[in-house]
Amino acid sequence: MTPQPNPQVGAAVKAADRAHVFHSWSAQELIDPLAVAGAEGSYFWDYEGNRYLDFTSGLVYTNIGYQHPKVVAAIQEQAATMTTFAPAFAVEARSEAARLIAERTPGDLDKIFFTNGGADAVEHATRMARLHTGRPKVLAAYRSYHGGTQQAINLTGDPRRWASDTGTAGVVHFWAPYLYRSRFYAETERQECERALQHLEDTIVFEGAQTVAAIILETVPGTAGIMIPPPGYLAGVRALCDKYGIVFVLDEVMAGFGRTGEWFAADLFDVTPDLMTFAKGVNSGYVPLGGVAISGEIAETFAKRPYPGGLTYSGHPLACAAAVATLNVMADEGVVDHAANLGAQVIEPGLRALAERHPSVGEVRGVGMFWALELVKNRETREPLVPYNATGEANAPMAAFGAAAKKHGLWPFINMNRTHVVPPCNITETEAKEGLAALDAALSVADEHTA
Amino acid sequence: MTPQPNPQVGAAVKAADRAHVFHSWSAQELIDPLAVAGAEGSYFWDYEGNRYLDFTSGLVYTNIGYQHPKVVAAIQEQAATMTTFAPAFAVEARSEAARLIAERTPGDLDKIFFTNGGADAVEHATRMARLHTGRPKVLAAYRSYHGGTQQAINLTGDPRRWASDTGTAGVVHFWAPYLYRSRFYAETERQECERALQHLEDTIVFEGAQTVAAIILETVPGTAGIMIPPPGYLAGVRALCDKYGIVFVLDEVMAGFGRTGEWFAADLFDVTPDLMTFAKGVNSGYVPLGGVAISGEIAETFAKRPYPGGLTYSGHPLACAAAVATLNVMADEGVVDHAANLGAQVIEPGLRALAERHPSVGEVRGVGMFWALELVKNRETREPLVPYNATGEANAPMAAFGAAAKKHGLWPFINMNRTHVVPPCNITETEAKEGLAALDAALSVADEHTA
Ligand SMILES: Cc1ncc(COP(=O)(O)O)c(C=O)c1O
Ligand SMILES: Cc1ncc(COP(=O)(O)O)c(C=O)c1O
Repeated sequence: MTPQPNPQVGAAVKAADRAHVFHSWSAQELIDPLAVAGAEGSYFWDYEGNRYLDFTSGLVYTNIGYQHPKVVAAIQEQAATMTTFAPAFAVEARSEAARLIAERTPGDLDKIFFTNGGADAVEHATRMARLHTGRPKVLAAYRSYHGGTQQAINLTGDPRRWASDTGTAGVVHFWAPYLYRSRFYAETERQECERALQHLEDTIVFEGAQTVAAIILETVPGTAGIMIPPPGYLAGVRALCDKYGIVFVLDEVMAGFGRTGEWFAADLFDVTPDLMTFAKGVNSGYVPLGGVAISGEIAETFAKRPYPGGLTYSGHPLACAAAVATLNVMADEGVVDHAANLGAQVIEPGLRALAERHPSVGEVRGVGMFWALELVKNRETREPLVPYNATGEANAPMAAFGAAAKKHGLWPFINMNRTHVVPPCNITETEAKEGLAALDAALSVADEHTA
Repeated sequence: MTPQPNPQVGAAVKAADRAHVFHSWSAQELIDPLAVAGAEGSYFWDYEGNRYLDFTSGLVYTNIGYQHPKVVAAIQEQAATMTTFAPAFAVEARSEAARLIAERTPGDLDKIFFTNGGADAVEHATRMARLHTGRPKVLAAYRSYHGGTQQAINLTGDPRRWASDTGTAGVVHFWAPYLYRSRFYAETERQECERALQHLEDTIVFEGAQTVAAIILETVPGTAGIMIPPPGYLAGVRALCDKYGIVFVLDEVMAGFGRTGEWFAADLFDVTPDLMTFAKGVNSGYVPLGGVAISGEIAETFAKRPYPGGLTYSGHPLACAAAVATLNVMADEGVVDHAANLGAQVIEPGLRALAERHPSVGEVRGVGMFWALELVKNRETREPLVPYNATGEANAPMAAFGAAAKKHGLWPFINMNRTHVVPPCNITETEAKEGLAALDAALSVADEHTA
């Protein structure tokens, strides 16, 4: 836990990275990846002896922090007995992981199709919906992220889609509620909700309901800005799906497994989708794993007729064993309640206090361990601190904010004009307060860019 | 290694599986997954005390067999130090895995983009090709398998594509060489090769070369039947790609990492693609991992311009540590040469002897630890033992063959009218001979269905 500087090893790791590792979402010569030497709990450290408090949970997936000893031990034990086995067989870790997940999922989402991550979970969920309904289109929200494979990226409603959008993927985008920047000219949550539902129904009707297989939504949109849906919105979508015979898919890849202070974000809103995708928190990302939880009705469609989809590592025993251990740890250590309580008692008041002091904070929103600060040039106009999808010079204010946070020992999550506060769900109160103090300092730098 | 019967645990594992696990490519109520209790080396066993010699390597991925102690130890060590870390950072296991893979890949395929498996490797390779060329279409072969996600399944040339084929995916299928069932009316390998290349060039020209981003081929088509390309074919495809400015993608997800008795099947044919996909054998599937090896020229396209693709678990440290250990084990233990030698000295002569004795064997083809027997009703007409994509009663002869193999302690790989002999690449001579003897017995059952 005390980082030992070892710059020579760090230089070798970095050199091999630069020579051979092609990184996600990056211009390969314009990045400068930090070489990381170790990680434990809510912290990680580099080879120079710098330690960082991780307010990102990696990419919002290490919900129990790094190197939880019980999950590490479970991985080691499973490795010793059955590291891998092909998907057509019944194996203990796979059965047990499926059982524990099904126990936690809402409603009758009791059949689990395992994938390797979030994108392929979304791929398979939308395929199931298309085949179940026999309809071609999937409606997805702008301001969303659903993954990097072809179908998942076509569903995504952010700039990462543009380069790969064929326009022929059977995807139609609509607008979900977002009161802070309402395009429904709403002034209250209730108005935003009603108007967003009206917009969605209009879209269904004008697309032709009989052509719409599914509506997919992140229960709480994550990377796009943690917009907590207003009361009644998700229930309203559920009702529209029922009215028009559309499959309701909730993507809980980021929001699931404790992030919102519930096992699933759907529980916050008391809605049950027909399909639910998950990944990340299911085993804190210790071993790649994702999946789709499937309702009884949709499972029935594939009872006598083969489901035309699969993958070599579906239900990988090592990944499933890590899930079993993670879910047991979360239950035994009360991680989900901890996320809810610490969120309500420490993070939320802390962030609201920061907003009081810092003119760059336009809005604070979130729940549990899932918070966003929207940084603005001007609180009145709500003009974002940097433009949509800014890079280089245009993005300088957010880059300065990020650098300041790191200088204060905090690794921040940054997306466009927002910083998200998404630490491990089992972060301690002391750590949370340490992070809030670093944010305080970094926001002073952001303030310099306000008008 | 000695299976202890434990039917009660087996029944519980099976019950939870049937209640909660949704299986790949299956009608959920028409399958009866065997509960597997353990696996080691080339064998696995169930809870009833039955042990099977695994001639499938799982789904052709456990190239070093089950539970190799050095790889298990490496996974345990990596779990103890850094189980996971986000993809934007440089970490030792990731750097080292990329370096070791790049050392083995042909030509200047020296940048490694890591994925979780084979399908997403194919997704990203084709995206890179489209963005590199600015062209929309990808040519792929009938009789191929490239994965279960949307783009990968659209590229696939087998019946698993049909249910999900949008027909708008920018994919065009062509025919690759297959002398045993030549549709080019060829009588020699040389003719088949020339005519297949002519057909491919015709297809390129009639599609409009300037619309073709990539040609993707399994170096040796795997699931589709292990059709070793005739001498000159892949070099001819390489030449066509060069002539028309098309990216050449070789899919080595199944053929790579020792399967053919070379590190990569491309080495057998002395060709260098522009992109090469891999998964499976890279770490024997002990932890989900795949990737794309990228040429200098294509990497350069994304040097200053971001590559628009990624995934949470790209370069997952645990998966990469398993790859490092696997590649070192393969080198230290001479697994690749062993596969070549045992293939040539034991498997090939053994299979040819079986073909002599059994009228149901129409053709034996393969190399290294990568062999197919094509089973036929009639050697003269070459009528397959079961029709293309047969199920139920129509598939009974192959089902009977499979059941007979299992009765003799051999778990066979079966696809349509073929059985593939694809054991771990480090199977011993004694084990190989045991498997050949069981095949001998099972083929006698197949013989009963010949005319
Ligand atoms: C809501 C959501 N869906 C899907 C994905 C894709 O998951 P993966 O990166 O594991 O493919 C993500 C990843 O951030 C996500 O946040
Ligand atoms: C040649 C080839 N490509 C791609 C894939 C897909 O790999 P995965 O199942 O890991 O997605 C496979 C799987 O068998 C394969 O054989």
